[in-house]
This record gives sequence, structure tokens and C-alpha cells, in this order.
Amino acid sequence: MAQPGRDDELVLLPLGGAGEIGMNFNAYGYGPADEREWIVVDCGVLFGREGLTPGIDLIMPDIRYLAEQRENVRAIVLTHAHEDHIGAVAHLWPQLRCPVYATPFTARLLEDKIEEAGLSEKLRVKIVPLGGKLKLGPFAVEFVSITHSILEPNALAIRTPLGVVVHTGDWKIDPDPLLGDVTDISALTKLGDEGALALVCDSTNALLQGSSGSEANVRKSLTELIGTLKGRVAVTSFASNVARLDTIARAAREHGREVALVGRAMHRITNAARETGYLKGFPNLLDEAEAAQLPPNRILYLCTGSQGETRAALARVASGDHPNVKLGAGDAVIFSSRIIPGNELSIFELQNKLAALGVEVLTEQDHFVHVSGHPARDELAQMYRWVRPQIAVPVHGELRHMTAHARLALSLQVPQAVVVQNGQMLRLAPGRAEIIDEVPSGRLYMDGRVLVEEGKGHARGRRALAFAGMIAITVALDSKGRVAGEPAVLLEGIPDPIHAPVREAVEGALRHHRSKRGDDEVLREAVRRAARRAASDAWGKKPVTRVEIMWV
Amino acid sequence: MAQPGRDDELVLLPLGGAGEIGMNFNAYGYGPADEREWIVVDCGVLFGREGLTPGIDLIMPDIRYLAEQRENVRAIVLTHAHEDHIGAVAHLWPQLRCPVYATPFTARLLEDKIEEAGLSEKLRVKIVPLGGKLKLGPFAVEFVSITHSILEPNALAIRTPLGVVVHTGDWKIDPDPLLGDVTDISALTKLGDEGALALVCDSTNALLQGSSGSEANVRKSLTELIGTLKGRVAVTSFASNVARLDTIARAAREHGREVALVGRAMHRITNAARETGYLKGFPNLLDEAEAAQLPPNRILYLCTGSQGETRAALARVASGDHPNVKLGAGDAVIFSSRIIPGNELSIFELQNKLAALGVEVLTEQDHFVHVSGHPARDELAQMYRWVRPQIAVPVHGELRHMTAHARLALSLQVPQAVVVQNGQMLRLAPGRAEIIDEVPSGRLYMDGRVLVEEGKGHARGRRALAFAGMIAITVALDSKGRVAGEPAVLLEGIPDPIHAPVREAVEGALRHHRSKRGDDEVLREAVRRAARRAASDAWGKKPVTRVEIMWV
Repeated sequence: MAQPGRDDELVLLPLGGAGEIGMNFNAYGYGPADEREWIVVDCGVLFGREGLTPGIDLIMPDIRYLAEQRENVRAIVLTHAHEDHIGAVAHLWPQLRCPVYATPFTARLLEDKIEEAGLSEKLRVKIVPLGGKLKLGPFAVEFVSITHSILEPNALAIRTPLGVVVHTGDWKIDPDPLLGDVTDISALTKLGDEGALALVCDSTNALLQGSSGSEANVRKSLTELIGTLKGRVAVTSFASNVARLDTIARAAREHGREVALVGRAMHRITNAARETGYLKGFPNLLDEAEAAQLPPNRILYLCTGSQGETRAALARVASGDHPNVKLGAGDAVIFSSRIIPGNELSIFELQNKLAALGVEVLTEQDHFVHVSGHPARDELAQMYRWVRPQIAVPVHGELRHMTAHARLALSLQVPQAVVVQNGQMLRLAPGRAEIIDEVPSGRLYMDGRVLVEEGKGHARGRRALAFAGMIAITVALDSKGRVAGEPAVLLEGIPDPIHAPVREAVEGALRHHRSKRGDDEVLREAVRRAARRAASDAWGKKPVTRVEIMWV
Repeated sequence: MAQPGRDDELVLLPLGGAGEIGMNFNAYGYGPADEREWIVVDCGVLFGREGLTPGIDLIMPDIRYLAEQRENVRAIVLTHAHEDHIGAVAHLWPQLRCPVYATPFTARLLEDKIEEAGLSEKLRVKIVPLGGKLKLGPFAVEFVSITHSILEPNALAIRTPLGVVVHTGDWKIDPDPLLGDVTDISALTKLGDEGALALVCDSTNALLQGSSGSEANVRKSLTELIGTLKGRVAVTSFASNVARLDTIARAAREHGREVALVGRAMHRITNAARETGYLKGFPNLLDEAEAAQLPPNRILYLCTGSQGETRAALARVASGDHPNVKLGAGDAVIFSSRIIPGNELSIFELQNKLAALGVEVLTEQDHFVHVSGHPARDELAQMYRWVRPQIAVPVHGELRHMTAHARLALSLQVPQAVVVQNGQMLRLAPGRAEIIDEVPSGRLYMDGRVLVEEGKGHARGRRALAFAGMIAITVALDSKGRVAGEPAVLLEGIPDPIHAPVREAVEGALRHHRSKRGDDEVLREAVRRAARRAASDAWGKKPVTRVEIMWV
């Protein structure tokens, strides 16, 4: 490895994920301040929430700062295939146009997204073998196998002339992950021996005591549980957890049940796993229609929709809308999943619908049917013992997680722990770690098919519409500026008893204008204020109110 | 007690709370089918959710069925003072105009609401002593003391010529509730000995194993925890849990801290408790401004806002907006509360803001700082052993809770368990319990100051606005039906790149009309469809689109 130049610095710049669990996007920069070379680790999305960001499905980082110097961005390197790590590649890559590196399973899933976005001609994912190495400008990147809740999760050892950074990606310590490699403890320990500069580490479960638990234990427990059930069984789980799908399929076979996949993501993921060499012992599957012919105690459905997504398979089953899958009294649904915060009410609504059908609902709350893919505090402590970094940098978490993580790291005698937020540039070396700059950052919303800046406010504007509805008024003026005809007053989302007072207020403002002519801007504002005040007086809420003047 | 007549029936009609945790409203009817006399037990609200019911703060039951026969409604009897049991009285009483009965503390809190609603002249709450009895037409109602997370919780023994119903209200088994009476086990056991017909019972925690735990244990644990803290301490809790407030105040004093209440509900509840004879040993309080003068380790703030409510005290403190209370590094906030489902994201946002200030956040997740007020499964089993009813009727729960509760009751050898939903009339006697009718029911939304029916769709309409915004178009026609001037096209909540295609589509539709005149309804629909299609093509979403024709 080359020697560092006099002005060379190593910096970390998170543009996503430092402050939220989602849209992970971390850039590492190396070189003098005015000519840094960059690599990007992960490029994910965050999912929108109806209450906070109505009409927004996907949220992703605003990467304009890197886009403006894209000739210096050497690569996007992906740690694993979860949406919050790869989901923004197809949307943001056109701003960077750099090579994208991933291991085979991750690459396979990403290729579908690239094709969907019509980018296949321009972007081919470069495949890195497990444990592989890359040279990217001043960065030497080594993939280190780790365990998580998906196939092929990787930590990255990022070597630079100023030191080595261990970027964990998402991880847990699972001594028996069932599919794929175990954690490469020897590689992590060697990095510690070598003298790691920084550990940039998953904070998701930094508030949880203990350990996350092993997939192998879930296999034992789920297999037993399925053995106790008599009617039809449906299990819903995160489709990307291939080891879990394998567990459920094996448990089904052990108890004489055939397996049918229900929901597109189940097919997509199992196909990708097979094509990249996994799931060799996976049982043959029935299709949904065949499965419906079997006696109830001979079938197990593996369904999408554990988060209560209204268009997913399980929600359609619960509503009685699914063409092939029907459940009723005597049947059971197992939620082999956790509740992602914010999805509580949708999930409970789904479970209530199932309960109304007479279906028994079995969840994490009552049975051991799920383990998390992220490290709880004992696992974090173990990682710090392996890597022994000079600097702890919590990422992948909200502030409450990151600050708890930093406190934990300091309690483990890591010399320095820095909580950094999106857009803050953290100098890792030389010298003591320090935030040295703040660059433009933020969120982009995928609104329908259009990518808009968070601040441009259409989602915020729509939230105002959701609260108090809208009044749209058009007033026609003739060529002499006289009011012509009756004004058009449209009210949307406003209770009926409020309509008459608003119309009367508009008429009143126009009468006043008729008797005492002013300019049309004055008229517009007078009408707007009269309508809004009338609504507020009658209703206690102020609708979004807009007035157009039309010249006829 | 009189003998039952030949056609007399005893029925239960839940109009709220059977299918949701909130807006509890249960009517008991007695008599022949065509002339039943009624009493109502509880009359509560449910809180709206921004995502599901935007702009709706309060939801309450549609009680038109009883309102139409209000001369037969003998009384509203209230079990305790939580909002989901008394919050709709002031809104719905004008439909019933019957006497309202409550114990002193409940009556005291309700009177504030009655005064706020301007009903003080018409409605005076009739006060029943603890353990008191009422004769209400064919019903003899006895108040039975029980424990819950508020002062003066009561079960009701409702005696009729056809048998006695035990209506639990909200309850838990707390052997040491700190304030107020313990559960009147002897009364409950006697009801069992007497031969209880039905137990109509709280289902909130029917999915939880074990027991809820005692306030006395929380007192021990909270007192210890507060003793370990060095800086300012703020504790947030449900203001209505007076025993908890007392615990926190005593813990503060034990560790040399003065107490200041922050937030209106804290003052309102402690005043009501004092005025009805509770909190005699409660320490003197400082006001917020005085408290700010003390050293950090001498002060404890007792704050509203545990659910992340944006206008409550703690949210204002976290945003740095509170005039008197400032927290920072070295200080701690204890959430002595649980997360009410649906509030997760608001609470986490609040905790993230506190973490950003350097404040340590301590919650139920890490420390024993809260117990539930509702019975877990062991407590439910104990209640069934005391009362030994012929019929179990789960109420106060979503379907998933009620069905689990019914299964539990059957497993405890209760002969019959019936899951009943709002609007279903359940005959309890004579004969086997059976749903005999379904009456009009539903939800009313308090939208601003206007009470609207759920089905009337303004909240639903606003949800559509929130998803895809609105296009409001006005086209002027002259007396000959010719298009006059330029159309007014207002777009709200729609990204900028969509505006031009929509305007062009409107122009196109009008050009077509100019060249080939039709009637104005045809024009209106043509313009509407053109605008909507253009938005959908460019954006992938279909805005709410309305067109007005204006004659000039």
C-alpha cells in the first residue's frame, strides 16, 4: 500500500442511514480536501409512511454532493441485498455512472431492478466472489463473510494508506445460520491485530440486551409448532430470509405437508437463490391451485405480507380476495417475522381479519418463531472485542440507537465514539476523529414516477390537504375588471355544513369588490381570506384555499 | 327482584369497543323485544390516526338506534374516568338526555368536559359512592371496587329478573394499588356463588401470558432508578394514573428532588384527585419557573406527552420550545408508560430529539418503570374462577384479542363464549346465548367542530387528496355555450413536472369542444378525463379531479 501524502485525509460521509434505519448510503473519501476520491458503500431506500409522507412509497438520499464530482467516485460497493442497502441503485446510479460491485446473490437480485429501470444496457453489476478483494483507487476493499438475515451478507475491510476501516454492514452473530458461511471470526480478529482505525457499525438493536439468537433454534421451534397444527397452515415471513424459507419448507415436509409459495417476492427470491447455487435440498413446490386440492393437513402456504401490506398475498387471503388460497376455522397463520415500527396498525388489522375468519394467529409474541438479523448489545460487545478499533462510528440507526451504541462503545474502552448525522463529513485520519464539514444532503421522494426533493413540499402539502381539505375558487373578470357570472367554488374533503358559509363569504367578498373596485390581486386575496375565515369559523379548521382570476 | 314476564329477554348490545380498544359503549336491554328498557355502560371515544383518518381527532360510536328510543334509556353508568369510557358523554348525551351516574373522581373529571361543552345547565352527573347501588328500571346495578390504572375503577354487577351480569370495566389484579381500594374479591366470589349468568370482560391483554404486575413494585423500581440519576430528571406518564404520579413525586422527595408538574393534564388530574380526597400526602409542588432555579440534581419534572403528542409538554421540551423547562447533556427522561399501538413513530421521533440533546432516555424496554392496567391471561383465569359465569362475553378489544379471550374462557370450562361485534344484539337470557339481531351502528368522526358519519367520507376523501393531490378546473362558457377565456387550472400537491401535461390536456379537450360543440356535461366529463389521464400518464397517479362550468 502506498504512503499517505502530506495533505491526505480519510473521511466518512454518510448521506443516508445515520439517523434512520433505512436508505443506507455511506461514502468514504481519500486524498487532499480539494481532490478526494470516493467509494460508496450501499445505496438503499427507506419506505414512506402514509401518515408522514402520504403518497410516497420510496425515500432515498439526496446525493448531489457526490453527483457534482462523479468523476471522482470510483465505485458503489454493496454489502448485501436488502432493499435498504440496494433499493436506490437503479434510481440514483444515473447520477454517478460508476461501477457497481456485489457478491453473486446480491448481484442477481439487483439485476432485476436494473432491468425494470431500463438500465441493463448501461449498467452491469460486477460480481465479487465471497471473501473477494477489490482495488478502487486508494481503497483496497476486502469482503468479509458475516451472518445476517439474508444470503451473502458481508462486512467490508477498507484499507487505505491512513489505516483500515471495518464497515460491518448489517450483521448478527449466528453460530448456525443454516445457509451460507458463518462469521469469519479469524478475519475480524486479524483486522484487530493489524490495528483497525475505525469500526463503522450497525446500530439497529443497540437498545436491546442480550443476543439475537440463531436461525437453527428457530428451525427447531417452528418445526415443533407446525407439528401441533391440524388444519391448513400459512406462514408469512420476510421473503429475503432464504434460510427461514428453507426452514419452513423442511418443517412442512417433516410433517407431511406440501409447500406452495404465495406472492411474487417468494418466487423471485427462491429463484434467485437457486440460480446462485443455494436451496439445493429445497422441496418441490406445488402451485397454489394444486395445493387447494389437498386435504388441509397436507398443505403449507408460504406467504408474503407479514407487514400487513394491503396488496400482498396474506392480506388478500385475509380479505377473501385471493383466487386460490382460502383459510377458515381450524386453520392457522404463523407470523415468522417481527413488526417493523410504523406497521403495527396494518399488521393488527390483518390479524383481526384473520381472527374474524376463525383462523388462529400465532406470532412472535406467543411463540419462538423469529430471530432478529441485527446485533443486540452482547453481540456488539463481541464485535468490539474482535476488531478493537480506535474509533467507533455508529451508523444504521435512529439517533436513540446511535447514541446508545456510542455509549456502549465507550464503556467497552474504545478510545473515541462519534455520532455522525447524514451530510456530516467525519475525518477519520489523520489525527483525532472530527466532523470537519457539512455538505448538502437530504431526502428524495419517489412520488409516483417522479423523484422530488423533500423540501419541495408536495407530500407536506398533501398532508395539509389530508388535514383540512381544499377550497378552489375561480372568479371571472371581464375586460373592464368587473366580476362576470357566478364564481366557481369547489370544496373537497370538507363536511357539508361548511359549504354554505364558505359560498356566502365568497359572494360577500365579491359584492364588496363590485361596489368598490380594486385590482385583481387585491380581489384574489380578499376572496381567499374570506373563504378561509368562514371555514375556520364554522369548522375550526383552515382548508388549503386557492383562488384563480379568469379573464373572459 | 320481580319475576320475568313471559316474553322478557335480557340482551347486550355493544355499539363501541367490541372490535376496537376504545369508544366503549355497551347497552343492556331488558323486556319484550318491542319494549325494551335500556341502560348504557360507558360512553367513550377512540383517537383518530393521521394515516387512517386524517384530520380526525376523536371517533365515537353511532348510537342512532338508542337515540330513536331514548325515552326507554334509563341511564348512562360509567365504570371509570378514562377517555375511552367517558370521552363521548358530552358529545352524545344530547341524543339520549338520560341521567348519568359515576363515582366521585370520575364525576369530577366528567364535569369539566360537560362545562366545556356548555351543557352544565342541562346535565348534572349523579354521584354514586364506591360500592353503591342503583335501581334503574328492571336493572339493579351494584358498583364493585376493582383495580386498574386510574382512581376509582369499578366493575358493575347488573341484576335483572333473568340473572346477574358481571360487567368488569377495565381491570387488573393489583394486590397493592397504592391509592384506592383493592379488588373486592369477596363481592366477586359472592356473585359467583349466587350464580352469575354472564361475565362481560376486558380483552385488552388477552394475548399476554402471566400477570400485569403491581404498582407497588413499580414504586420500588422507579424509586431506585431515580436514585441513580445525577442531572435533571423528567418523568412522563399517563396523567390519569394518579398512583404513578404519587410514586414519582415520593421517589423525587426521597432523593432530595422538588417536583414540578409540566403540562395541563397533570394539573387537571392532580387537582381532581385532591378535590375528591386523594393525594393527601402529595408533596408541595414548585412551578416550572421556580424549578428552573434549582440545581439539576434537585429537580424532577412530571410531564405530559408520553405518546409523542406534538403539542404536549415533553415534545415542546425536546424541541427546545418550552418556556421554562430545558434539558441537555447529563439529564434523563424516564418514559413510565407503554407505547399505545400506532404511536410508535411519534414516540421514537420524540426520543430521537431527546437523544440529539444529549439526554438519556430510559424506557420500559430497559427498566421496570411501568405496569399495564389490564389483565393478562393469568388474571383473566382468576376472574373466571371467582365469577364462574355461564357465558363469557369478551369486549374491549380488537377481534384478535376477543377471539383469544373466548378461547381462553372455553379452556377454563365456561360453558359458552360468544364473540360479539358492534351492532350485534346478543340475547343473554332466556335460553342459550345467541345473536338475535343486528342494529344500525358505526362510527362518528369529530371533524373539526362537526360530527360526521364515517361513511360520509370526508376523511376518506382527504386520504385520496393526501395520496395524489387535486386538480380543480374551471371552464367559462358564454351564453352561446362557447368557451370564454382561458380555463383556470389549479393543481395542489402535484409535482411541478406534471403541471404542463395536465394544462395541455385541458387545452386539447377544449379545442376539441370548440371545433365540435356538445353540451356542457359532456364538456365537463371530457375535460375531467383528459386532465386525469394526463396526470396518470406523466406521474403514475390519479389526482382527485373536479371541473366546474361557469356561465359568463
